Amino acid sequence: MSIRLAQLVERLGGQLKGDGQTEVRGIAPLDVAGSAEITFLSNPKFRAQAEQTQAAALILSEADDAQVQGYAGARIVTKNPYAYFARAAQWFQQLAAPELTPGIHPGAWVDPSAQVAASAVIGPHVVVEAGAVIGERARIDAGSFVGRGARIGDDTHFHARVTLHHGCEIGERGIVHSGAVIGADGFGFANEAGQWIKIPQVGRVMIGADVEIGANTTIDRGALADTVIEEGVKLDNQIQIAHNCHIGAHTAIAACAGIAGSAKIGKYCSIGGAAMIHGHITIADRVHVSAGTLALRSILEPGQYTGFYPIAEHREWEKSAALVRNLGSMREKIRALEKTLKTLNKADQAAPHDAASPAPQNQEEK
Amino acid sequence: MSIRLAQLVERLGGQLKGDGQTEVRGIAPLDVAGSAEITFLSNPKFRAQAEQTQAAALILSEADDAQVQGYAGARIVTKNPYAYFARAAQWFQQLAAPELTPGIHPGAWVDPSAQVAASAVIGPHVVVEAGAVIGERARIDAGSFVGRGARIGDDTHFHARVTLHHGCEIGERGIVHSGAVIGADGFGFANEAGQWIKIPQVGRVMIGADVEIGANTTIDRGALADTVIEEGVKLDNQIQIAHNCHIGAHTAIAACAGIAGSAKIGKYCSIGGAAMIHGHITIADRVHVSAGTLALRSILEPGQYTGFYPIAEHREWEKSAALVRNLGSMREKIRALEKTLKTLNKADQAAPHDAASPAPQNQEEK
Amino acid sequence: MSIRLAQLVERLGGQLKGDGQTEVRGIAPLDVAGSAEITFLSNPKFRAQAEQTQAAALILSEADDAQVQGYAGARIVTKNPYAYFARAAQWFQQLAAPELTPGIHPGAWVDPSAQVAASAVIGPHVVVEAGAVIGERARIDAGSFVGRGARIGDDTHFHARVTLHHGCEIGERGIVHSGAVIGADGFGFANEAGQWIKIPQVGRVMIGADVEIGANTTIDRGALADTVIEEGVKLDNQIQIAHNCHIGAHTAIAACAGIAGSAKIGKYCSIGGAAMIHGHITIADRVHVSAGTLALRSILEPGQYTGFYPIAEHREWEKSAALVRNLGSMREKIRALEKTLKTLNKADQAAPHDAASPAPQNQEEK
Repeated sequence: MSIRLAQLVERLGGQLKGDGQTEVRGIAPLDVAGSAEITFLSNPKFRAQAEQTQAAALILSEADDAQVQGYAGARIVTKNPYAYFARAAQWFQQLAAPELTPGIHPGAWVDPSAQVAASAVIGPHVVVEAGAVIGERARIDAGSFVGRGARIGDDTHFHARVTLHHGCEIGERGIVHSGAVIGADGFGFANEAGQWIKIPQVGRVMIGADVEIGANTTIDRGALADTVIEEGVKLDNQIQIAHNCHIGAHTAIAACAGIAGSAKIGKYCSIGGAAMIHGHITIADRVHVSAGTLALRSILEPGQYTGFYPIAEHREWEKSAALVRNLGSMREKIRALEKTLKTLNKADQAAPHDAASPAPQNQEEK
Repeated sequence: MSIRLAQLVERLGGQLKGDGQTEVRGIAPLDVAGSAEITFLSNPKFRAQAEQTQAAALILSEADDAQVQGYAGARIVTKNPYAYFARAAQWFQQLAAPELTPGIHPGAWVDPSAQVAASAVIGPHVVVEAGAVIGERARIDAGSFVGRGARIGDDTHFHARVTLHHGCEIGERGIVHSGAVIGADGFGFANEAGQWIKIPQVGRVMIGADVEIGANTTIDRGALADTVIEEGVKLDNQIQIAHNCHIGAHTAIAACAGIAGSAKIGKYCSIGGAAMIHGHITIADRVHVSAGTLALRSILEPGQYTGFYPIAEHREWEKSAALVRNLGSMREKIRALEKTLKTLNKADQAAPHDAASPAPQNQEEK
Repeated sequence: MSIRLAQLVERLGGQLKGDGQTEVRGIAPLDVAGSAEITFLSNPKFRAQAEQTQAAALILSEADDAQVQGYAGARIVTKNPYAYFARAAQWFQQLAAPELTPGIHPGAWVDPSAQVAASAVIGPHVVVEAGAVIGERARIDAGSFVGRGARIGDDTHFHARVTLHHGCEIGERGIVHSGAVIGADGFGFANEAGQWIKIPQVGRVMIGADVEIGANTTIDRGALADTVIEEGVKLDNQIQIAHNCHIGAHTAIAACAGIAGSAKIGKYCSIGGAAMIHGHITIADRVHVSAGTLALRSILEPGQYTGFYPIAEHREWEKSAALVRNLGSMREKIRALEKTLKTLNKADQAAPHDAASPAPQNQEEK
């Protein structure tokens, strides 16, 4: 369960400085790594720690390589040491993972018309309905549900108790965490004399490759057209994505955020925790919405956008909140002051004693 | 799988203008509908599209019927075309749905003392505990849990992985989406020297007819009395309803909203996404709470209520948030200005040159 | 199914005034309790109700015992009547609960290498993976999942459909409600040219004794180190706790709150509903964060902290929100007024008519 540095560089790239036959058994932070482990320096702040690390090997950037002198072990020089760390850690995790036997657990119910790849692993209490398609090496853990005609790409992993409703699709190398619900009905009703008449939700959820979906996150199916999540999107836990949303590639959304119906979010965006995006608006590419912020209208320029009430001691907040509610009267007072002062100023300017300001002139006048 | 216009009008009402034998196979928007489909005009803005639609038939209001001249197909004239669309779409959805065989899946566990209607459909990995009652044509999908003594009304549909805890009840024609949890314990504790002593939650959740409950929504059982959801309520995904809340009939609540303990919400209300209703308060009938708004005190008058911090570019927000925290000092400055100006004004009024304002008098004085 | 008062006092303490042989069958509020029930007075406001209650026995404090004269039934005098009520109610609930047979339901899948105590109750469709350990009298309800190597303490109860991922641990007397997910991956990625590279999450979730976790709450496993929930913590529904958080003992968190990665919350805190705690910050012991409040920076002093926009009628909010966005210009206007007034004041003070303020002097001057 160890990797030689030469193997690492062969698979993940980077320039090796040191003995390629050196074996490492895991990856750990600078201050924790032992002599059988590899570590990484991704922030120049920690150069001093890098000088002292006990690790067998150090992943670092060219700039840091030039600066770190005292460290005597092997080095892997790469443009993005943090991304290199992530990939190396993935490899070590794969080595440590228990071996799974492909096939369908006897406690699963798989419809005879479903197509499950022979290399897929279907856990106990899983249900796969008619016409569903599950790709090569896909892993569907205990208690998950795959509705009729749904499709799951190669190498995608559903953790325990995931729901993918009928007709919805997710691409290759996806990861879906426990309790996520993909393809429940969108919230659509016609109102008739105060009562709500359900509008059937007949669109699907279409999810690209390399998407990760957090625990208990919900993504609703479209009303008529589809809800779309492009490739590389990362969704944290307990996010709600309403019907007919479109999330652009490589956008990351933090936990507890909500995206209302038909919102369109661009590529390479980040949406902070508990942020809320209103329905039917457009968020441009590379927009960052801060945590706890409600975006009410479209945002068409890249940048960071924020809006939440600043926290304070409770009594301070009570005062400021009362004043916020009375900002209108505060503005009126300012206007009244401006008006009075203008009048006064005119009066003063009219009066002989006051060619007043600036003060020096005034003093000359005395 | 098609419906004749005469059948539509027979079941759903409306005045048919055209050939009742015309068959339609589905319903689609004005710009998408083909010659085998029916469409609808619910917003006068789209009259131009209605003139051009390829649909075989058009659902529209009396007013629009008078205005739309160019469209040559059949028409169904009705008071509320959007509600008519919803009902027609429901019908088409039923026609397209796979036939289900009534009965209990061999992979479900149903207690012998439970009463399950012969027309009900119980999916794989479902558990129905002792004394539970499941009505005619009810459908309980894979992995759902029905606790002891719980009751499910006729024609109610639990999607996969719903939990209904012991003693709780839901009426007829309900829809509960995946991951919803009805009847978990409310959050009730007595504090003793800093530690929390659990107060048993022995009330139930009582849900009326025609209620829809979204994916991963949670509704807690009452502490002593029951939590009550009246008929026709529509709840979106990931809503939290705490113990002993009472939600009035035909109220709709959008995703991620939270209703704290013992709050009472009236009938025909709408609560926006991620809105929060404090505990032990009362919201009158026909109140609309905007998204992202926290209602701290009772709202006794119908109307729309809002309260969230406006979004801005991050630097602008930083400035405004700093000022919000210092509104007290801003008010003090205004008061000081008012005081100084008052004094100054008195002085000016006392001084001979200044019977100053209004300015014209002043100018006369010169 | 009844308890004698002497038994109550023997188990729960308190001073009995009256006949210890009196039997009570349940506990109910003052105004509801009948002659076969016990009731409690925990708030002096309700003394008048206590005088009138029909209950067979009354739990109350020493102070209230001295004040309540008219009530003729038995009394149990104790320091904390509300906590006494909670414990008595727990006992009545146990008496009313259905008897469970220890053992593993035939519809569960338990790995042969898992250690399940003989006194534990494992429900249908439960999965217990290799090497997991389940303690004495633990109860794992239908459809729950216990990952490989996970550990569940004695007397802990998982309601239906709970997920505890591999390697995670929960102590004694815990209660976990339906849909909770413990130990899903934290949200950690390295960015490389706009794309996200997953950082394996190899820490665990370590939960102490006497912890309650609400329905659909999610607690992520740590990235490298563990996520820690200390003993006595109470978590409501739909809470999100990110990787590497540390929640101190006896802290209570209300529904829909979110705690971002690596936040450290002290002991005896309370976090209100839908409050959000930013990542990497520290909250001291005995801090109370109000509902709907976002804590952006560390809070190092005990106290109550609040920050949410006050609700108002929608039009009022529109006005105040517009003004909040323009607070900068309001401040500029105040500054301009101050400057003008200062200049004017100097001018006035320099001018002969105005040794102006205070007014009395001024009037003398006339």
